[in-house]
Amino acid sequence: MSELKDYMYSVGERAKRAARVIANADTGVKNQALAFIADEIEHQQSAILQANALDVKAGQDSGLDAALLDRLALNEERVQAISEGLRQIIALPDPAGEISQINSRPSGIKVGQMRVPLGVIGIIYESRPNVTADAAALCLKSGNASILRGGSEAKHSNQAIAACITKGLNQAGLPTEVVQVVETTDRNAVGELIRMEDFVDVIIPRGGKGLIERVTKEARVPVIKHLHGVCHVYIDDLADKEMAKSIALNAKTQRYGTCNTMETLLLAEGIAKDILPELAKLYTDKGVELRGCEKTCQIIPSCEKAVEADWDEEYLAPILSIRVVDDMTAAMDHIHQHGSGHTESIVTADYSKAVQFLREVDSSSVMVNASTRFADGFEYGLGGEIGISTNKLHARGPVGLIGLTTQKYIVLGDGHIRQ
Amino acid sequence: MSELKDYMYSVGERAKRAARVIANADTGVKNQALAFIADEIEHQQSAILQANALDVKAGQDSGLDAALLDRLALNEERVQAISEGLRQIIALPDPAGEISQINSRPSGIKVGQMRVPLGVIGIIYESRPNVTADAAALCLKSGNASILRGGSEAKHSNQAIAACITKGLNQAGLPTEVVQVVETTDRNAVGELIRMEDFVDVIIPRGGKGLIERVTKEARVPVIKHLHGVCHVYIDDLADKEMAKSIALNAKTQRYGTCNTMETLLLAEGIAKDILPELAKLYTDKGVELRGCEKTCQIIPSCEKAVEADWDEEYLAPILSIRVVDDMTAAMDHIHQHGSGHTESIVTADYSKAVQFLREVDSSSVMVNASTRFADGFEYGLGGEIGISTNKLHARGPVGLIGLTTQKYIVLGDGHIRQ
Repeated sequence: MSELKDYMYSVGERAKRAARVIANADTGVKNQALAFIADEIEHQQSAILQANALDVKAGQDSGLDAALLDRLALNEERVQAISEGLRQIIALPDPAGEISQINSRPSGIKVGQMRVPLGVIGIIYESRPNVTADAAALCLKSGNASILRGGSEAKHSNQAIAACITKGLNQAGLPTEVVQVVETTDRNAVGELIRMEDFVDVIIPRGGKGLIERVTKEARVPVIKHLHGVCHVYIDDLADKEMAKSIALNAKTQRYGTCNTMETLLLAEGIAKDILPELAKLYTDKGVELRGCEKTCQIIPSCEKAVEADWDEEYLAPILSIRVVDDMTAAMDHIHQHGSGHTESIVTADYSKAVQFLREVDSSSVMVNASTRFADGFEYGLGGEIGISTNKLHARGPVGLIGLTTQKYIVLGDGHIRQ
Repeated sequence: MSELKDYMYSVGERAKRAARVIANADTGVKNQALAFIADEIEHQQSAILQANALDVKAGQDSGLDAALLDRLALNEERVQAISEGLRQIIALPDPAGEISQINSRPSGIKVGQMRVPLGVIGIIYESRPNVTADAAALCLKSGNASILRGGSEAKHSNQAIAACITKGLNQAGLPTEVVQVVETTDRNAVGELIRMEDFVDVIIPRGGKGLIERVTKEARVPVIKHLHGVCHVYIDDLADKEMAKSIALNAKTQRYGTCNTMETLLLAEGIAKDILPELAKLYTDKGVELRGCEKTCQIIPSCEKAVEADWDEEYLAPILSIRVVDDMTAAMDHIHQHGSGHTESIVTADYSKAVQFLREVDSSSVMVNASTRFADGFEYGLGGEIGISTNKLHARGPVGLIGLTTQKYIVLGDGHIRQ
């Protein structure tokens, strides 16, 4: 334990030192490093695949479930996608160093804000080797040092990718400690990492609810957390019926396992009867299991009765809970009580209701007449995302390069003193 | 203890309910409430002064030190200043509801960000009754509910001001739970408040280092903390000598007890001999005790020798540590090692050094050719401040109304679904 502490401490210390270098590196140098890393990943494709095969074999032997195995497994296409992802990050504008409008104050000083990297970012993630490259690249581009701690099931894959990153940094003349992949698979390493407040500026956990709850509870370092998505679509009585059905279907069935998938459909009493029967058929055709409130079950007799726990559930599966509510106020009350603050959408043709819903629903993304599935960094134009924050402070919603930076005040004087 | 928990829980629950109302209140209504509160404080001046006299008497009897008694004591002028402060907040623009530029995305959706209140803000402060009105007003204007927990030494004063706030909210037709002043003086109330993550969105501690360290350590709710200010002025060898002396004198002596006061003066070796003798005389004339490094003591023989601990000290007093450094890099290394990330200033006529210092020094305010004493919400044009954050995340530097808000994404569609 003390040896582990020493190891993590030295990782932290090196990261902090490297952070000062990368914070002030020119955009061109950072982009060059990213290009070298992308090249190296392409060159090392077969080595990466060999390492990955070891992980997959071990995962199969230890009975890892199919979904996890799928996330873990790489093939030529997936390795190619990793290096393409890096090249996309090269194309993004560098947020570091941006100066916001400078204002002159009555005292004569000029005051503005400069965007700067956060410093050292700790990322804790599960067994998805692509996250190693992706997270490292986003941190690097925004001028941060990173400490990456991936799932032990992907250890060989992660180390193979880490070797490419180290080589790329080296080729660009940057300290290799700008990106460090934690080598030990000791679970206590996470506990150390999230408490190293002298070295780490923020922790970003990517993974299941259990991981994130543990990290949030034990961390001494601030956490940008992505808790879970219990997302809602509310169909107002003034909605266009075809639009409502199309959005409700897409929000649930376009993908089941994502955090921005709708988990509960709310319908105004005035429209429920008109669209629920057809919608239920569309869902059933796709194999979605429906669990409804009493009124829903009256309209769709085949619908299973929802229990109270259904309203708080993130199914991440072809299951949908449905509730008929009196009006938008009741829908917003339901969201306030059961939502996770991730993403909610209203379908309505009514201007006032649209504006009120946008203003009053307290979630990281609030939508009008659009599928919740759009809540994602690429769709929003961030060029990538390191996660979707359900925090209220600092970064809320999809977190891209900007979310990995902060702003400091800058003051330009010419000998000004305070009177 | 369980009774206290119940009480704090009910305070939190009421705040959370009130937060939904105030978040969506019109600017006009919020301003009206602030005007009613300001009026009421003026009307109740004698009642407030009577309550304050009880606190001051108790403070004197229990041997409160002179500085604390001075902060605690109100008089007609100070009460007037409190209501004037409220009227100034009325004049500030309302940050809530502001929508940032909306961009069209290739999918057809339009994506922007809306600024919204944080929700419930807990403020823990020491015995300064003016903070009760000031903090309540900033939270109210930005659309947040607040839970205020002042020092027990000011309990009568705080309750008298709280009564005015309650009346003003009531007159404006707002729930009185928008601002709640914790009634118990039980110290454990703070412990409860900072752990009520279901009800409180952010904690802002205002007070000494001890309070803030305790809150930071024990809190489960995110904290906007203002730790301490070990601020530096670095005089470069290319500085204008008269400007350098004027800034160095102002940064230390304009006020001693503030967090943006310079505590350590750094001078490039090339200029130290030229200006230190005269500067030392100016400081000594003002009664400032000097503690210098070896080189400083060679130039100013009367200077006391600094010990290692001096470089980390926030004196808040007429004491200054002085260090002669090789160059700007050495100065930045010193700041990196000993600074608290609050405010640093360089005095130089050199463009490249100015730019490099602005970029590389990792503090909440970084200045060129200006006194560190400018680091404050009023001087920066924020119209007021609820504290100066030494956090990197969310708000950094002086925190005004904007720092009490967050941004959520809004998506405007017209039936858009994800392909």
